Amino acid sequence: MTAPADFERMWRDLAPIGRSPVSGGYFRQPWTAAELELRSWFREQAGARDLIVEEDPFGNLVAWWRPVAPGEEGAQRPSRDPSPVLTGSHLDSVLDGGAYDGPLGVVSALAAVDLMRERGVRPARRLGIAAFVEEEGSRFGRACLGSRLAVGATSWADARELTDPAGVRLGDLVEGGDPTGWLSGVDCYLELHVEQGRGLIDHDAPVGAASGIWPHGRWRLDITGRADHAGTTRMRDRADPMLTYAATALAANEAARGSGQRATFGRVEVRPNGTNAVPSAVTAWLDARADSGDALAELVAAVEKQALQRSGLDGTAVTVTAESVTGEVSFDAALRETVGSAGMPVLPTQAGHDAGILQAAGIPSAMLFVRNPSGVSHSPAETAGTADCLAGVTALADALERLIG
Amino acid sequence: MTAPADFERMWRDLAPIGRSPVSGGYFRQPWTAAELELRSWFREQAGARDLIVEEDPFGNLVAWWRPVAPGEEGAQRPSRDPSPVLTGSHLDSVLDGGAYDGPLGVVSALAAVDLMRERGVRPARRLGIAAFVEEEGSRFGRACLGSRLAVGATSWADARELTDPAGVRLGDLVEGGDPTGWLSGVDCYLELHVEQGRGLIDHDAPVGAASGIWPHGRWRLDITGRADHAGTTRMRDRADPMLTYAATALAANEAARGSGQRATFGRVEVRPNGTNAVPSAVTAWLDARADSGDALAELVAAVEKQALQRSGLDGTAVTVTAESVTGEVSFDAALRETVGSAGMPVLPTQAGHDAGILQAAGIPSAMLFVRNPSGVSHSPAETAGTADCLAGVTALADALERLIG
Repeated sequence: MTAPADFERMWRDLAPIGRSPVSGGYFRQPWTAAELELRSWFREQAGARDLIVEEDPFGNLVAWWRPVAPGEEGAQRPSRDPSPVLTGSHLDSVLDGGAYDGPLGVVSALAAVDLMRERGVRPARRLGIAAFVEEEGSRFGRACLGSRLAVGATSWADARELTDPAGVRLGDLVEGGDPTGWLSGVDCYLELHVEQGRGLIDHDAPVGAASGIWPHGRWRLDITGRADHAGTTRMRDRADPMLTYAATALAANEAARGSGQRATFGRVEVRPNGTNAVPSAVTAWLDARADSGDALAELVAAVEKQALQRSGLDGTAVTVTAESVTGEVSFDAALRETVGSAGMPVLPTQAGHDAGILQAAGIPSAMLFVRNPSGVSHSPAETAGTADCLAGVTALADALERLIG
Repeated sequence: MTAPADFERMWRDLAPIGRSPVSGGYFRQPWTAAELELRSWFREQAGARDLIVEEDPFGNLVAWWRPVAPGEEGAQRPSRDPSPVLTGSHLDSVLDGGAYDGPLGVVSALAAVDLMRERGVRPARRLGIAAFVEEEGSRFGRACLGSRLAVGATSWADARELTDPAGVRLGDLVEGGDPTGWLSGVDCYLELHVEQGRGLIDHDAPVGAASGIWPHGRWRLDITGRADHAGTTRMRDRADPMLTYAATALAANEAARGSGQRATFGRVEVRPNGTNAVPSAVTAWLDARADSGDALAELVAAVEKQALQRSGLDGTAVTVTAESVTGEVSFDAALRETVGSAGMPVLPTQAGHDAGILQAAGIPSAMLFVRNPSGVSHSPAETAGTADCLAGVTALADALERLIG
């Protein structure tokens, strides 16, 4: 089977796993049945290619393609094994997400190994295909948690206390759990990802390279008021946290729109969430991103100020807690030169990625993007054309061949 | 044991059932363990007083005190049994509600029977103490569902298709279920209830009577947009239903505040409800009440207009569905004269009650309110003083004695 045919077969295999028959979106939260099935599939594919799979204590997977000199076949470890190259992405999805965000990088890496083998490439050093866990933070609220733990950017002592929306504690789900240091010695990381905006549409190009990632983060707003009867309580006697929340959500949108940044309230929890009760509390999460650290701080401060002003009018109280904040990342310029080809567009992104975590931890990293004709992501509508995906596989194989050949 | 002491004992018995140790509020949704325990308790109390309990196919309970002429002791049914008088209230609560809303009417009715017996009252006709199911609509979304079904205002064919937030279908929870006609022959209904506003505080009176209930209802807003990545999607490229919702919630508050009416958004559901995803849909429930049917229609129309205008800006779509609408209720004036005492304040209420359903169905009804020093309801803070509660028991016993003596 040729590498393109193999890519298409793998893609078809993954299509039904964790897919909602209602929306067509994917539900592949970490340690759910769908995500565990994806992990089994990854191990099978690695096995079929004689790649050796390692799993760290948290569940991050790497399938290793090892250099084997003539006469060394069957040896556990070759005599010379310089620091390895890593590629890959993640298998988990947001709630009701698209098929491409994450899996495209993993499937393309497997197909790139097929393509390099067809070309007769013999690796001079190890190549690992990684599948990082909980990249989306859709279950435990901390984006890129697997890679953060692996590079030591987040401590296991902190992470194990996180709980999912059902109240399951991460430390009870994952025994051991601490993968710190697991990526030590990795020379560089190259992640292929579906583009999540419209940059490559605008450039009319199937594949591009990333310049860097905007600083971004998540802030939790806890707004408390006073529960009351929705009928008998006069409007002026209320302390309704829903109003403070609503005004803050609109203010965040205005602030980001006016400054060219991004601010989103996509998650809200209301207590008690009853039709005929003024809520006692609203908890809401602000996702904010900006083109500089200063602009991000300014944006979040503007939202917080509006929330506090409105809470004064409503008689409610607001606290703002930063749950995760990631500074600006500029990907390694030399690696991007190696990875990109002449004329390939170079784009910034507003989305966090494991590549950003590894770069920030001192592992030179780069990213390739594949065009997404929908321009949308974190949505069932997210897509990519087969020809563009195969151009991505070729670009990835070309880049990896330069790094390990 | 005297009636006052018995009231206090019953009240202490109920205090821990379904109470949250965190908020101090009550979670007594229909057919949960807490509510089933309350129903058992009611049967025990009725049994201890030689009241005969009937349960309709839906679960509404009535404990009957039957007239027994000398020499007729032990007979199943006395020779003359004119149409009965009904009192009582409900045992269920909103999510995280107060102790008094509902149970106070049931406990006071039991205590009023004790008091009438102490006074040597011999009933000339039957007196029933009712405990209606799902008065709050906190589980299946339809307020006063038990009484609506009992008087035929809602059909069982419609009601059995209702689902709770966990997806449980009412028809699967309750077999049989149709109590239509179960209250035929009832002569009148008198419900005692904790006041849910500040009227009796303003009147400096422990007990008052209700003049009527404002027209009110629940409307569901389904707002759909387009799921997107919270980072990579430019603000101007979004169709974010959260913005439409937030603007509508603020507009509803403004409209009610300006017109002296009530409008509340206390319940919201967001899909997919992920921090880093622009939502695909927001469903929110408007609770609206006004001092006339025209004013209510005007209020809801104003909110709907604002929602549609904003959705035009946001690129979202809105549909508004009336889930339940109850017209204005004026309680029976003659019955109120019988029930009230000289100087007792007469107050309107903005809260729906089973008494309103029975009155609208042609059963003359009246209500007594007991002062609530907190002025709040549907909240753990809801309260009533013991002396005021005992004044309520006395007023109820006085009224019932006039009706059945």
